[in-house]
Amino acid sequence: MFNEFGKFIKLTTFGESHGLALGGIIDGFPAGLSVNFDEIQKDLDRRKPGQSRIVTQRKEEDKVEFISGIFDGKTTGQSIGFIIKNTNQKSKDYDHNTGVFRPSHADFTYFQKYGIRDYRGGGRTSARETVNWVVAGALAKQLISSIRFHAFVSSIGEITLQKNINELDLNLTESNIVRCPDPKTAEQMIQKIAEIKKDGDTIGGIITCIIKNVPVGLGEPIFDKLSARLAQGMMSINAAKGFEIGSGFAGTQLKGSEHNDIFIQGGKTLTNNSGGVQGGISNGMDIVFKVAFKPVATIMKEQQTIDEKGNVSTIKGKGRHDPCVLPRAVPIVEAIAAFVLADFWLMNKARKI
Amino acid sequence: MFNEFGKFIKLTTFGESHGLALGGIIDGFPAGLSVNFDEIQKDLDRRKPGQSRIVTQRKEEDKVEFISGIFDGKTTGQSIGFIIKNTNQKSKDYDHNTGVFRPSHADFTYFQKYGIRDYRGGGRTSARETVNWVVAGALAKQLISSIRFHAFVSSIGEITLQKNINELDLNLTESNIVRCPDPKTAEQMIQKIAEIKKDGDTIGGIITCIIKNVPVGLGEPIFDKLSARLAQGMMSINAAKGFEIGSGFAGTQLKGSEHNDIFIQGGKTLTNNSGGVQGGISNGMDIVFKVAFKPVATIMKEQQTIDEKGNVSTIKGKGRHDPCVLPRAVPIVEAIAAFVLADFWLMNKARKI
Amino acid sequence: MFNEFGKFIKLTTFGESHGLALGGIIDGFPAGLSVNFDEIQKDLDRRKPGQSRIVTQRKEEDKVEFISGIFDGKTTGQSIGFIIKNTNQKSKDYDHNTGVFRPSHADFTYFQKYGIRDYRGGGRTSARETVNWVVAGALAKQLISSIRFHAFVSSIGEITLQKNINELDLNLTESNIVRCPDPKTAEQMIQKIAEIKKDGDTIGGIITCIIKNVPVGLGEPIFDKLSARLAQGMMSINAAKGFEIGSGFAGTQLKGSEHNDIFIQGGKTLTNNSGGVQGGISNGMDIVFKVAFKPVATIMKEQQTIDEKGNVSTIKGKGRHDPCVLPRAVPIVEAIAAFVLADFWLMNKARKI
Amino acid sequence: MFNEFGKFIKLTTFGESHGLALGGIIDGFPAGLSVNFDEIQKDLDRRKPGQSRIVTQRKEEDKVEFISGIFDGKTTGQSIGFIIKNTNQKSKDYDHNTGVFRPSHADFTYFQKYGIRDYRGGGRTSARETVNWVVAGALAKQLISSIRFHAFVSSIGEITLQKNINELDLNLTESNIVRCPDPKTAEQMIQKIAEIKKDGDTIGGIITCIIKNVPVGLGEPIFDKLSARLAQGMMSINAAKGFEIGSGFAGTQLKGSEHNDIFIQGGKTLTNNSGGVQGGISNGMDIVFKVAFKPVATIMKEQQTIDEKGNVSTIKGKGRHDPCVLPRAVPIVEAIAAFVLADFWLMNKARKI
Repeated sequence: MFNEFGKFIKLTTFGESHGLALGGIIDGFPAGLSVNFDEIQKDLDRRKPGQSRIVTQRKEEDKVEFISGIFDGKTTGQSIGFIIKNTNQKSKDYDHNTGVFRPSHADFTYFQKYGIRDYRGGGRTSARETVNWVVAGALAKQLISSIRFHAFVSSIGEITLQKNINELDLNLTESNIVRCPDPKTAEQMIQKIAEIKKDGDTIGGIITCIIKNVPVGLGEPIFDKLSARLAQGMMSINAAKGFEIGSGFAGTQLKGSEHNDIFIQGGKTLTNNSGGVQGGISNGMDIVFKVAFKPVATIMKEQQTIDEKGNVSTIKGKGRHDPCVLPRAVPIVEAIAAFVLADFWLMNKARKI
Repeated sequence: MFNEFGKFIKLTTFGESHGLALGGIIDGFPAGLSVNFDEIQKDLDRRKPGQSRIVTQRKEEDKVEFISGIFDGKTTGQSIGFIIKNTNQKSKDYDHNTGVFRPSHADFTYFQKYGIRDYRGGGRTSARETVNWVVAGALAKQLISSIRFHAFVSSIGEITLQKNINELDLNLTESNIVRCPDPKTAEQMIQKIAEIKKDGDTIGGIITCIIKNVPVGLGEPIFDKLSARLAQGMMSINAAKGFEIGSGFAGTQLKGSEHNDIFIQGGKTLTNNSGGVQGGISNGMDIVFKVAFKPVATIMKEQQTIDEKGNVSTIKGKGRHDPCVLPRAVPIVEAIAAFVLADFWLMNKARKI
Repeated sequence: MFNEFGKFIKLTTFGESHGLALGGIIDGFPAGLSVNFDEIQKDLDRRKPGQSRIVTQRKEEDKVEFISGIFDGKTTGQSIGFIIKNTNQKSKDYDHNTGVFRPSHADFTYFQKYGIRDYRGGGRTSARETVNWVVAGALAKQLISSIRFHAFVSSIGEITLQKNINELDLNLTESNIVRCPDPKTAEQMIQKIAEIKKDGDTIGGIITCIIKNVPVGLGEPIFDKLSARLAQGMMSINAAKGFEIGSGFAGTQLKGSEHNDIFIQGGKTLTNNSGGVQGGISNGMDIVFKVAFKPVATIMKEQQTIDEKGNVSTIKGKGRHDPCVLPRAVPIVEAIAAFVLADFWLMNKARKI
Repeated sequence: MFNEFGKFIKLTTFGESHGLALGGIIDGFPAGLSVNFDEIQKDLDRRKPGQSRIVTQRKEEDKVEFISGIFDGKTTGQSIGFIIKNTNQKSKDYDHNTGVFRPSHADFTYFQKYGIRDYRGGGRTSARETVNWVVAGALAKQLISSIRFHAFVSSIGEITLQKNINELDLNLTESNIVRCPDPKTAEQMIQKIAEIKKDGDTIGGIITCIIKNVPVGLGEPIFDKLSARLAQGMMSINAAKGFEIGSGFAGTQLKGSEHNDIFIQGGKTLTNNSGGVQGGISNGMDIVFKVAFKPVATIMKEQQTIDEKGNVSTIKGKGRHDPCVLPRAVPIVEAIAAFVLADFWLMNKARKI
């Protein structure tokens, strides 16, 4: 019930940051899809650590091995088991972390809740777990291949992409290491992260995601609204602190007459404050949402903290950590979105006679 | 799978705005709780239509009738069935709505998805459904009675509560019809809504919720994080377009050294940018989150739209509608939050030996 | 999680035997079905108490009222809420039952588990709950109307239908009050039950169910096999103590060469020891299974028992009870089977590309 | 939804008979249990192929590797991922099976349903999958270690254990290769299987399971009755065709006055026709149930069958197959039962205040 995501297609995962491997099982995936393994590995490469100078320097190949559910290159309808081995753990870097908790980190809450925690690399609190989501999302993308997912970094700290969504060339997202589709802004962002990193600190930001070519009708009111499921998925990502769709928080300042998306001939709308979702169901317009990421908790500076007995102590981060998760979170956001939409797409086949 | 909310305790609901009644079943609620029916009705009264001049004028008593699962005033552990009758439907007000769709409303998407819709009062797209959630949330509040839920309106359009959370007297929330704990700001908000209403328009806003006295350990990583489940619940509310917890979107601009909540003796933290949740689990600090509500789609002005064939037409709202849902959404936000926390509180009894 | 049955279409129920009403919510039912309300009531009439001299004499009309999810006679895809009022409770008949437990009844276990029980009419332990299942099953039958469900009583005590399945005229099932399709055997069965009833005792029996016109491919290995789900549903019926499909227990004595169903041209099989299910999936042959029902626990004779403190006491049944549940269980078995098959039928729409 | 078993603790599995490996994820297992790995391997050894002359001669070590969720020998509350590698596949043995279907086997239904099947070793239709269940069941046994599980073979073909349950010395079950606790009957059974095997045929049988030391209160009416969940689990086992609990099918011939289990001082009962479950909840008496297994479909004799186009063909089994699955199914039955009881045991912690 806790390590699973999705309803009709469901991903269940396991794995600790410094364990032998991570992996998962995808259940409910329909039979008959010819799998493009290269495309899957591409998304994994976009997420993997050690990919550039502005992310963690842990080196992992993140090669996924599919163990079941795919035969002669096609999905069989049986559960798809997969595994990604860990090859570059440096557990010694965490020895200092055994008796104390990193501020704003899950170290403390996990210990309180379970009475035990695998501290090495953060154990299961680590964002390394998201490698599993990217595998599932990549398969989902292939299932609903006409739907296109475009996530990108729209702000790092106070540096915000100024261009309007319609002015962006989304093909440029992958052209730089911070994954911002505006080269100039990307420059500033990269510079900012590099400074932060040098300072042994971390910085947050916002990812925007645009989903194009969405059919009408995806989403299951009342409690499995497309917007609600996307929110649940995105808020599951490590460091996520906010989610908004369409006009989001800014739209709360508008009046209905200003905010309403007027229908035009054929069913499209003039504006898209709805962000492509109305009443929890996709209306055919682009789905547009944002995810807010706080700055990563582990910093290289010394901080006051407490130990397992509740007494004051200090801690100073060691090892390899991301100064900013945003670039690596872009494929994760796409993966979650794809898995969600694929789930609804499948269920929609049985919602009306 | 679609009309249910919760895992261990689960609420399943039914009901259309102009149907005979709405209602639900609460499954998994533990046996032995002495139910305070007056407290439940109080929360229903806080949500009901016709309560003030700044909400819809539909008059409903919203009296809940419990049909099962409670014996001699105590919960039996059996499923709790309840019903709330509709008494004040004016379906004629929706006759004009049969062949056309309200802009930014679920009319269109429901029709596309299901091929059929109960248009009267918006059918199941109506926020009247939330009356069911308040029943469930009220029961949940009694189960985890030491945990306190304080939701309030923190902004209406551009009018924003300026005070810091710590400066607020949350007891004042119920002292005015807009449910803002600062009397001065409340005044402005009420005035604004009244103007908007007179103009036949609608306005959005933001609700802030503070949950106090939260035990450590609630939440189920990886995919049932407390923050993710709250997001899913809140984003299920009609008109919700955004969710953020703790420092939310603003916190993305901070550095880790600025954002981290330093632990102090005993386990509390100096600041609370985490909003009471770390790694998806409550850490004992107040849980603080916000929900953004767009302006209600149904306005009394004429708008361009399309009909069921996709051809351009016009529509002008009739009947009784909320110019602003925020005041009535306050008890709904509390209800969802309470149900979520009660669910995790119950499950936590079985997470460690 | 406990009062729900089904996955894609799901029935959640509530209601105690002597409460105000019973009812349920059907979620996931597709939109667009024109509902035949008379057919639903027919199945309810087949199940209702007071229908003949060999069942309980409690008189209930068991009229179902649909409250939501059906508009202009068609399902809308929204949750279907329904209710059946209780009109003929005689709670005084249970006063003697307050402090003691009926042997072989759920009185004891419910009290131990929950610490509280609604003793009137057996509360939620009562088979009256099955009225809800018949509503859901009746709707399911209409969804998959080409599939035909034929349950009948094949034995009462030691009286067993001797005819081979192929020799039966299943249309005769409804021609007598014990629902056995062989008039001669039915005579003996009715006589037996009448004697038992006069003696203040009860008797058990077996129901056989044949499902005709089943498409190939229904069932979801590995853990949601058609046979497993049917077993779970049937074993949920009050007094059910056994389930077997195809050759069942008798088939364990055969060798593979004797037991195997040989395929003939086109995909049918020569024999049907599989009972229409192979590897958990329907193979197109008739599904044939049996459900064993123990004699009802409440008898009119005096029995030794214990009270709530664990001390020895006595109890003697009062009120109106079934001497034999088999005749009334026939439509219940069909209802469960129909709901199960409809669930798999819907899910099958999304299992291959 | 399909490859998962359990509610609070949940096992999700993957793996084909001739794939790289099988494995699974156990989610919801509480933190803090010191794991005895040897005990787990013992149960796996009881299930593994090649263990004696009356089972399949495929040689597999079936060594389980735990990849996550266990740290310093203790469960952490995080998902437990495990894997069992296949080392002795002989896929050539199945080349003849590519275009044709084995009678009474899942070959046909899988191909119809999915349009594709991994034919090697039967793919996911193979009972090899049950190795995963034994891992989960073994962990469950350790969680509820005071509850004892005793499954044994009570009949092979027409050879039936004549002794009464109370007369059995259950410690003798493991003393012979057919796992029958009566040495004399075991002899006959072994002889019978050897003959059948020599003849290239297969035979079925029945397993009885006794669960001792069961606390009162396990099971979740209405739809998650202990008896119903056990039935669902047992009927998931390959070749299972029937399930009965307590007096089962035989009890249907008794009258209530003969069948009722009279309560004696303290809460125990004089007889145990209920098989330890009343109203779907355990009553503290031993749980006693039986599972019927048909003869394995794959025989070494030639049989008529059809090919993928539906045309008549022939097939003759090759490779290593079980002449009788009963001996190896004994630990599987225990595993399922343990996992079910552990699930209810955990959930019971939150069912009353």
